[in-house]
Amino acid sequence: MPSLETYDRSLDYSYAPGVFPTLEALTRAPQRVRRVLTHSRAEGSEGLDKILALCQQHNIRVEQADKALARVSGKDNCFAAAVFAKEAAPLLPGWHVVLHHISDSGNLGTILRTALGFGYLDIAIIRPAADVYAPPVVRASMGALFSLRVTEYDDFALYRAQFPQQTLFPFMLDGALPPDEAKKEAPFSLIFGNEGTGLPPEFAAFGQPIRIPHSNAIDSLNLSIAAAIGMYEFRKEQ
Amino acid sequence: MPSLETYDRSLDYSYAPGVFPTLEALTRAPQRVRRVLTHSRAEGSEGLDKILALCQQHNIRVEQADKALARVSGKDNCFAAAVFAKEAAPLLPGWHVVLHHISDSGNLGTILRTALGFGYLDIAIIRPAADVYAPPVVRASMGALFSLRVTEYDDFALYRAQFPQQTLFPFMLDGALPPDEAKKEAPFSLIFGNEGTGLPPEFAAFGQPIRIPHSNAIDSLNLSIAAAIGMYEFRKEQ
Repeated sequence: MPSLETYDRSLDYSYAPGVFPTLEALTRAPQRVRRVLTHSRAEGSEGLDKILALCQQHNIRVEQADKALARVSGKDNCFAAAVFAKEAAPLLPGWHVVLHHISDSGNLGTILRTALGFGYLDIAIIRPAADVYAPPVVRASMGALFSLRVTEYDDFALYRAQFPQQTLFPFMLDGALPPDEAKKEAPFSLIFGNEGTGLPPEFAAFGQPIRIPHSNAIDSLNLSIAAAIGMYEFRKEQ
Repeated sequence: MPSLETYDRSLDYSYAPGVFPTLEALTRAPQRVRRVLTHSRAEGSEGLDKILALCQQHNIRVEQADKALARVSGKDNCFAAAVFAKEAAPLLPGWHVVLHHISDSGNLGTILRTALGFGYLDIAIIRPAADVYAPPVVRASMGALFSLRVTEYDDFALYRAQFPQQTLFPFMLDGALPPDEAKKEAPFSLIFGNEGTGLPPEFAAFGQPIRIPHSNAIDSLNLSIAAAIGMYEFRKEQ
């Protein structure tokens, strides 16, 4: 393997920065981990011991590389990172979360973590969108990426053609139904739009639009908050 | 007024960076705004026109100050900031959100915005905690700070002594009840703990502990997500 480059979307690998995300990569997707970087200051810690044991078990190379770690994580206090292969995982029909033109890395990572916590294992991302493999997203997801099936699509129509059976619930500010009144029958897809602009109006015709009720003292809920409440409500009755 | 300093917790004023937070400050709490800074690149924009009109109406001084703006906001693309007086606002009995030792500025800002959206106007912050007046918090709150009553307390007991009638709902990982099964009668306080450590165990005895159900594939929900779902559930039946 050549020397490690600062992350760029064109690379076929990325970094999971942090001890916890590295452990998630090694536990959930060891076949995708090409190498693990560790920091000299982590020596003797419980987290590092677990990392070393998993690397030995899966025959994964470990390098103490303080400088490379600081460079690829962009942080001075990052104690480990997994170098992992980027691989799209085909979605299965069921409970989907569809993120249309999501632009904020922190929101994307938080949504992945929440999705895993509420049992949504299939995530479709409609481009252009934040890069789901970017290290800040992997970090914000706390490694949830390694437990999910994630596929990026160039267009919503491509996603829809692949999953014609899913009932669609676009979350929109002018949606007619609050989420607790929607009829929830799997397979379904919860669809969330861009942070600034929401979903394009034509999505209202694709399924049953949903609006999370909130006062008009705010313009809108933060996207990761709206997605969490949507996932929570649609999960409850399963 | 002396020249503007980079924000520090010891100052009696702070900055609301961004056009939208500045407009919120000017609309919701004009009496607290001491001055407004604008960027030359904002000239002619709709947002700036609104800011100028509000400043004229309330007789607030406006300065075009590109460099000071970049310095106090920490961003190059910040087009306006309100300089505002820090003022604790006494809480009223009712629906409270209590944040115990919250440490992340982004979480705190997001929680303020969500609280305003769900009609929780009274926020208690138990120190040590992130600084609710710090510019990144005000920015993340989208200016919600100016519509809320926020008080910081040095100890939970001080808060409790002031509001003995509130029913307490501490959100804990080992809480017994999911939020949709709790008996919700105002006045009540939803209590959320630190991002890493949660609430101390003794909080379980202070009221009815609540746990938001999630799979054990994740350690915990992000704090701003858990708080949002709690606020959403307790709001629904009012």
